[in-house]
Amino acid sequence: MTTHTHLTAPTQYVEANGIRFAYRRFGKAGGVPLVFNTHFTGTMDHWDPAITDGFAKDREVILFNNAGVSSSSGDVPNNFPAMAANAAAFIKALGLARVDFLGFSIGGIIAQELALQEPRLIRKLVLVGTGPRSGEGMASLTPEAQQIFGATYENPDELWLKVFFTDSEESQKAGRAFLKRFRQRVEHRDPEVDERVAPAQIEAILANGVPRENPFDYLRDIQQPTLVVNGGNDVIIYTINSYHLFKHIPNAQLILYPDGNHGSQYQYPQRFVSQVSYFLDE
Amino acid sequence: MTTHTHLTAPTQYVEANGIRFAYRRFGKAGGVPLVFNTHFTGTMDHWDPAITDGFAKDREVILFNNAGVSSSSGDVPNNFPAMAANAAAFIKALGLARVDFLGFSIGGIIAQELALQEPRLIRKLVLVGTGPRSGEGMASLTPEAQQIFGATYENPDELWLKVFFTDSEESQKAGRAFLKRFRQRVEHRDPEVDERVAPAQIEAILANGVPRENPFDYLRDIQQPTLVVNGGNDVIIYTINSYHLFKHIPNAQLILYPDGNHGSQYQYPQRFVSQVSYFLDE
Repeated sequence: MTTHTHLTAPTQYVEANGIRFAYRRFGKAGGVPLVFNTHFTGTMDHWDPAITDGFAKDREVILFNNAGVSSSSGDVPNNFPAMAANAAAFIKALGLARVDFLGFSIGGIIAQELALQEPRLIRKLVLVGTGPRSGEGMASLTPEAQQIFGATYENPDELWLKVFFTDSEESQKAGRAFLKRFRQRVEHRDPEVDERVAPAQIEAILANGVPRENPFDYLRDIQQPTLVVNGGNDVIIYTINSYHLFKHIPNAQLILYPDGNHGSQYQYPQRFVSQVSYFLDE
Repeated sequence: MTTHTHLTAPTQYVEANGIRFAYRRFGKAGGVPLVFNTHFTGTMDHWDPAITDGFAKDREVILFNNAGVSSSSGDVPNNFPAMAANAAAFIKALGLARVDFLGFSIGGIIAQELALQEPRLIRKLVLVGTGPRSGEGMASLTPEAQQIFGATYENPDELWLKVFFTDSEESQKAGRAFLKRFRQRVEHRDPEVDERVAPAQIEAILANGVPRENPFDYLRDIQQPTLVVNGGNDVIIYTINSYHLFKHIPNAQLILYPDGNHGSQYQYPQRFVSQVSYFLDE
């Protein structure tokens, strides 16, 4: 067991599938580790230390950049099944036989694909701010997402105030506290993603969102106990998609937060850590 | 502080509104008590000791029979606002200025009316297996409810296996464990409700369910922090109604359980007590 935290954990590297994966690993070792897969154009530094360190008290936390993202080598594939295969290769390269997997936004889409590809590798699934294949409003970016991601911001971090939080005073206040926390790590931060990442991830989003017949049937094959979490007013991946995930994954629990947008877990970090920990420990 | 539990707490009486209310009060005194309002034709003995005693470890629990129900005198009104007014009179007659209120099924409809009538009396609201005015499938009993309540059962308790649990093996097993628990109190049980209760409660259900324009607007006036809990397959008050409650009550959190019917809290009693306690203590 190390005494490292979100702020101090060194970036390490492991090779698999011809990719040099960057990762950070910290917290209480010995149980089933919790692997985090982040959102559109995110890096390891986009996680909230209140959440990662919150979990690290009781379990091992593993952050990583998937292929082509920031400090990891390789290319970002143009589809989520390939990203999931890369995530599986990364986990196995660490010598791990069984992990819990928390995916946020497109990370939650990768999490679903990974659970289907590797049912024995994944013990429990946490799907945050995400949706299913062909989810509502997922055939393209939502109008709100197009507006928010298309605008320019005096301080680039302010983008996340619009993506993750609602316009309420309370939520924006929580957002500013989040932005402070996610800048707390000062040394050895990840480089921002390069200009090839967003187009590939958007291509994957569009391929995933394309209308299909009986689009949610595939969710019946997810056998893992699953916890679905979101805010009640997610404008990036509409909240109703969390309800669809819940209704179609056989063993899923749903938790939705008040006055919450796409990053509701950052608005209620203590509650989130407590509820997810209970789910993982049950 | 008494050492009484669900099984031993004596039935006490208090007068208000010309009604002699029967109640039981136990658990850890000193904080905000949690008052329970039960379901269609239910009495104090229909609560699950795993839940009431679970809460009683950390807070005071108050069970009661509303007017006209079982050991309470008076008549069952034919509408929920009047039942809520009776509940308020009961709480005030105990000399309490502020309580948390947990309503299950029609108890959850009464809880909403009570929160609107008495915003200062109610601190937090827990709405379990319930729905809003004019909810989906609430203009009459659902076809499933009509079938389940219309059938005859070798052992009358078996009705609750159909009302509260799904047909899955796991859920039915949890149901049989629940039936054992709710028969654990042997002495001083409540009498079953008399033949006037069901017709009056059904009249109230139909009046509440009648279609209205913008039926959910009234929920905007519920100011209490609210936790909405249900199973994902409630056939008595359809689960989508829990989603509507969540979406329209300004400060509401939603938790939905897998493979759960109308009484999902009895399928996952430890989880339910843990999650609701976290919400009440936050």
